[in-house]
Amino acid sequence: MLIVMKKGATDESVQGVVNAAEKRGYTARPIPGGDRVSIGILYNKGSVDAGHFMGLEGVKEVIPVTKPYKLVSREFQNENTVVKVGNVMFGDGSIPVIAGPCAIESEEQAITIAKAVQKAGAAMFRGGAFKPRTSPYDFQGLGKQGLEILAKVREKTGMPVATEVMDIENFDLVEEYADVIQIGTRNMQNFSLLKRAGKSKKPVILKRGMSAMLQEWLMAAEYIMEEGNSQVILCERGIRTFVRHSRNTLDLSVVPAVKKESHLPIILDPSHAAGVRDQVTPLTCASVAVGADGLMVEVHHKPDEAMSDGAQSLYPAQFEKLMKMVNSIHAITGACCENN
Amino acid sequence: MLIVMKKGATDESVQGVVNAAEKRGYTARPIPGGDRVSIGILYNKGSVDAGHFMGLEGVKEVIPVTKPYKLVSREFQNENTVVKVGNVMFGDGSIPVIAGPCAIESEEQAITIAKAVQKAGAAMFRGGAFKPRTSPYDFQGLGKQGLEILAKVREKTGMPVATEVMDIENFDLVEEYADVIQIGTRNMQNFSLLKRAGKSKKPVILKRGMSAMLQEWLMAAEYIMEEGNSQVILCERGIRTFVRHSRNTLDLSVVPAVKKESHLPIILDPSHAAGVRDQVTPLTCASVAVGADGLMVEVHHKPDEAMSDGAQSLYPAQFEKLMKMVNSIHAITGACCENN
Amino acid sequence: MLIVMKKGATDESVQGVVNAAEKRGYTARPIPGGDRVSIGILYNKGSVDAGHFMGLEGVKEVIPVTKPYKLVSREFQNENTVVKVGNVMFGDGSIPVIAGPCAIESEEQAITIAKAVQKAGAAMFRGGAFKPRTSPYDFQGLGKQGLEILAKVREKTGMPVATEVMDIENFDLVEEYADVIQIGTRNMQNFSLLKRAGKSKKPVILKRGMSAMLQEWLMAAEYIMEEGNSQVILCERGIRTFVRHSRNTLDLSVVPAVKKESHLPIILDPSHAAGVRDQVTPLTCASVAVGADGLMVEVHHKPDEAMSDGAQSLYPAQFEKLMKMVNSIHAITGACCENN
Amino acid sequence: MLIVMKKGATDESVQGVVNAAEKRGYTARPIPGGDRVSIGILYNKGSVDAGHFMGLEGVKEVIPVTKPYKLVSREFQNENTVVKVGNVMFGDGSIPVIAGPCAIESEEQAITIAKAVQKAGAAMFRGGAFKPRTSPYDFQGLGKQGLEILAKVREKTGMPVATEVMDIENFDLVEEYADVIQIGTRNMQNFSLLKRAGKSKKPVILKRGMSAMLQEWLMAAEYIMEEGNSQVILCERGIRTFVRHSRNTLDLSVVPAVKKESHLPIILDPSHAAGVRDQVTPLTCASVAVGADGLMVEVHHKPDEAMSDGAQSLYPAQFEKLMKMVNSIHAITGACCENN
Repeated sequence: MLIVMKKGATDESVQGVVNAAEKRGYTARPIPGGDRVSIGILYNKGSVDAGHFMGLEGVKEVIPVTKPYKLVSREFQNENTVVKVGNVMFGDGSIPVIAGPCAIESEEQAITIAKAVQKAGAAMFRGGAFKPRTSPYDFQGLGKQGLEILAKVREKTGMPVATEVMDIENFDLVEEYADVIQIGTRNMQNFSLLKRAGKSKKPVILKRGMSAMLQEWLMAAEYIMEEGNSQVILCERGIRTFVRHSRNTLDLSVVPAVKKESHLPIILDPSHAAGVRDQVTPLTCASVAVGADGLMVEVHHKPDEAMSDGAQSLYPAQFEKLMKMVNSIHAITGACCENN
Repeated sequence: MLIVMKKGATDESVQGVVNAAEKRGYTARPIPGGDRVSIGILYNKGSVDAGHFMGLEGVKEVIPVTKPYKLVSREFQNENTVVKVGNVMFGDGSIPVIAGPCAIESEEQAITIAKAVQKAGAAMFRGGAFKPRTSPYDFQGLGKQGLEILAKVREKTGMPVATEVMDIENFDLVEEYADVIQIGTRNMQNFSLLKRAGKSKKPVILKRGMSAMLQEWLMAAEYIMEEGNSQVILCERGIRTFVRHSRNTLDLSVVPAVKKESHLPIILDPSHAAGVRDQVTPLTCASVAVGADGLMVEVHHKPDEAMSDGAQSLYPAQFEKLMKMVNSIHAITGACCENN
Repeated sequence: MLIVMKKGATDESVQGVVNAAEKRGYTARPIPGGDRVSIGILYNKGSVDAGHFMGLEGVKEVIPVTKPYKLVSREFQNENTVVKVGNVMFGDGSIPVIAGPCAIESEEQAITIAKAVQKAGAAMFRGGAFKPRTSPYDFQGLGKQGLEILAKVREKTGMPVATEVMDIENFDLVEEYADVIQIGTRNMQNFSLLKRAGKSKKPVILKRGMSAMLQEWLMAAEYIMEEGNSQVILCERGIRTFVRHSRNTLDLSVVPAVKKESHLPIILDPSHAAGVRDQVTPLTCASVAVGADGLMVEVHHKPDEAMSDGAQSLYPAQFEKLMKMVNSIHAITGACCENN
Repeated sequence: MLIVMKKGATDESVQGVVNAAEKRGYTARPIPGGDRVSIGILYNKGSVDAGHFMGLEGVKEVIPVTKPYKLVSREFQNENTVVKVGNVMFGDGSIPVIAGPCAIESEEQAITIAKAVQKAGAAMFRGGAFKPRTSPYDFQGLGKQGLEILAKVREKTGMPVATEVMDIENFDLVEEYADVIQIGTRNMQNFSLLKRAGKSKKPVILKRGMSAMLQEWLMAAEYIMEEGNSQVILCERGIRTFVRHSRNTLDLSVVPAVKKESHLPIILDPSHAAGVRDQVTPLTCASVAVGADGLMVEVHHKPDEAMSDGAQSLYPAQFEKLMKMVNSIHAITGACCENN
């Protein structure tokens, strides 16, 4: 923590800050600068709350230095975390693809799509049973029946399945059926849900909140890890910006930024960011090229009849073509991030 | 819903869209334009999902016309909803102020602040018992003990109390103690929590999500109303923008926009938007002037020792001064929105 | 400047940073912290470019401390700058209102509106002669003829006139006619234009760029001041955010932030931020309450026939009503910012 | 244009809108809907200004349908525009790379870097002679001397050169030396400069403004084309968002969006978006994969001593490695956008 004093701050106000720091158990050392004095807070364990000093007499600015996260930090653990879901690995340098429809609509729909995506090379199946919908009047998912269909997909194809949990009420149920539990973008800072996920034995996909800073996202992962679950996969799905030509803006720069700050694997979900089918293939290719540890792509055999998000779902034939590009690009850029 | 076709779209593709619409039970009517054909979806009840048509052959763009909300809409109910909390009214043209610390820290702290804000003219007391914190290592609130302190504040001062609920687990408990239940910005789209709030007999303050569009916010309120609770107070608390000179950007334009679209009362929380004390007084004055139906302001008697958000808390003396300005401005602009 | 080293950075890399700093003529002092070493750059005059250090071995982060601006800074000049345009003052605690149409369309239109706004209490007239338009097919303004009309307005009403300059080509011309020269939001970082404005004897209204950070805006003002023109009025007109219920988001928090950092007066333009008439009155009231040093409001006697921005122009009767509220609110909050 | 009336709008107000439309020469046709009437404006040539109708009695919303651009539109010209700079092609399916330092610092520096990037496979050289800098105290470029150095680079290497023009004053000069003229992000809506560029015989690289909507960017290109210069290359360089882990957010979704709306080639500049060297390689790979028609990458042989933007410049060895990846990825995804 660096506390920057106003130009011409009095010795008394500098001493006041030093006293306030020592009162809270920190060591404070004034550092004279060209125009002003700054005060360093030294030897602190963990981060210091800027709010403690921002309002004090003579203080111009408070600049945090130590990051507030620990367990998720690459400084805490240098080697990449590899998350294993069934026999699928995230973070080991491979590029597993999770594919399937937005929502499970019927057993026939799920099995049809699952077989198609598996044939094309997908490693895991996805499908929503509990759907977070902006409108209470929209299709909310099949619930438990959807989970049972997921279990049948796993049985028939051997692929692990991913599905979202929306609340603690249904956590036990989802946990029983899912191979990896997904926490959605709107729940990224649902701290009660994060704590429950931290107590689970199942790995967790933690989607980034639509307006989450990198640090807030890593802190959300810290909540899960702090409760004992270190099997966390981060998932970027687009952020909210002023842009209107896509639903959200896929923030690809977060991939190298995450890899620098954290040891956790990061996957990308270009379907939700795009919102329209046209952009899914190019954004997926870009996601591989930027160094993703995995992908999540929506596929539907009859997107025009889908009960949700049909407009962003690929046709199976498009997905097959895409998978070839994914694998070819990954062969080139797999080691991309190590090259910097 | 208006479906805009590409220039030179074939008659077949126009007919394809018409068929798709009729298959889903809508009436579709092609409208020739200067450069292209558009297709209107008519006589629909409620909104139509744009996704159903976006991927169809020849379609350039899909433009929703009907808003997806009903119960919250001013077209559904023209008169302002007045929410009553104890004897405090929101939406009747008055400007009740909810004041108190970010978190309840002790009985002494709560009572001291409560008396100070009441003396200055606050109508209601606020204080967090369960605190959503970005970091798992930060103070998480006193929990049930905090709620009991709130009850004592109410007993000793007669002011109704507002506090946040973070999850369904603690909903019954919070509901028992609070006069109005607050749903925080990070839970605005925690749909399970919204549904539970919809079943409550207590009024609800619904904070806007940090990156929520007006429509998403109103839809969140719709979730609550749809379950039967029509006592909803909207609360703007700042949105996430590129700006770094304040924690968030208080979106004052949302006040006239809400009043145009909805009959629900809207209050403002300048403290969380500002993040620094210097900006709280001017932003509070602006909030009154723009036509707020109430305010929420953080006050602490010893902000330098506060366990959270001390930097944005006003001193009681500042709050007292502010209350005078609030009332004077309200006397001028109370009828501001009617004047447009 | 504080250079934060990675945890476990070697002594060699620390020394490397110290050497790099000294090579550029700075004094560097390592500061041991809890987890890592930081290096302070001391006794520098003016700001230091972070880019010089960001790529060096062992460096985790570079944090600027000294702000890059000088002349605009309140630390450089503590008293408020008062800008005088004719006999109208900006920054002296009064709230002058600049009103008029978006574009000058004809002498009759200009005179009609000018008389109406003057009667209502406006201090200055505004109207565009050269209009920056998103589309080359839209009305681009009357050019020189528009300036001549402005001169007639001044002659007939005695009000000083404000108008925008779009390029250096027309600078001499605009300078000849205008009492205060306006630099538009799209030109905030047109550095050649800023330098030319810095050589002018006329005061300048510098609108904030739609996505300008506070620091970038102040640096743009620094360009003008550095060339010798200290008569700069800052004007906030809304920033680009994800919001769609108003054209832009009026950033009211920038008012106290500017007043803290700079001695320059700041006025607000709620008309352009709103984009729709309904929001102009409430946002104008809020602008006064937050502590503006002046206002700019669009008024048109026949907005439905206006050649540009009619939808955001107030009717003269609305403006008259608004002026009464402006003056009443200012009587209360005029000293608002001093009160913090 | 679709004009949506309020629920329960009277027949008179519907007729009022029809009359207003006809008065301006349009054809208006009321379309009854489920809840409300909408009015279509038909057979208009070009776009209609929403502002003409937004404030009318009974109007709830005005929705533009026709886009305001013509010449840049893919509906106007279906085949891709191929821009030729020397013998380098943009838009023909190849992936030319423009590389070089941020600023020209000396002949030796420029020639050294030019030879290195050419050897690695760059097709064109870039370097700033006139530099737009946020601070007036930063290095502003060598001016004419910089242009002369660029000419020498061209002479010695045979590569065409790209450099930025900041104002009309220096346009003739820059035009004389540059093979392609760059208009920077801060000047994207400097309409006078755009018009001058439209009169040039040289091709133009038009960078996207930091907060420009797709439509605003295309309209800026329309300004250039409307004056007669159809040799326009669009360049995405990152947008301003709330993100702090990169300088700007590279908006890759704009590539498929541009290709859908326009026939103009689009290149990407990952260096300015990233702001830090670590992110340049992954973002460049992603830019190729998403379907860019070219790239612009900053390279410096001694980035730690660079006079500007050293932190984001690649070392020549990194650039060489990158070029191999660029070409390999392009071999896979070159036809990416056709595949959707």
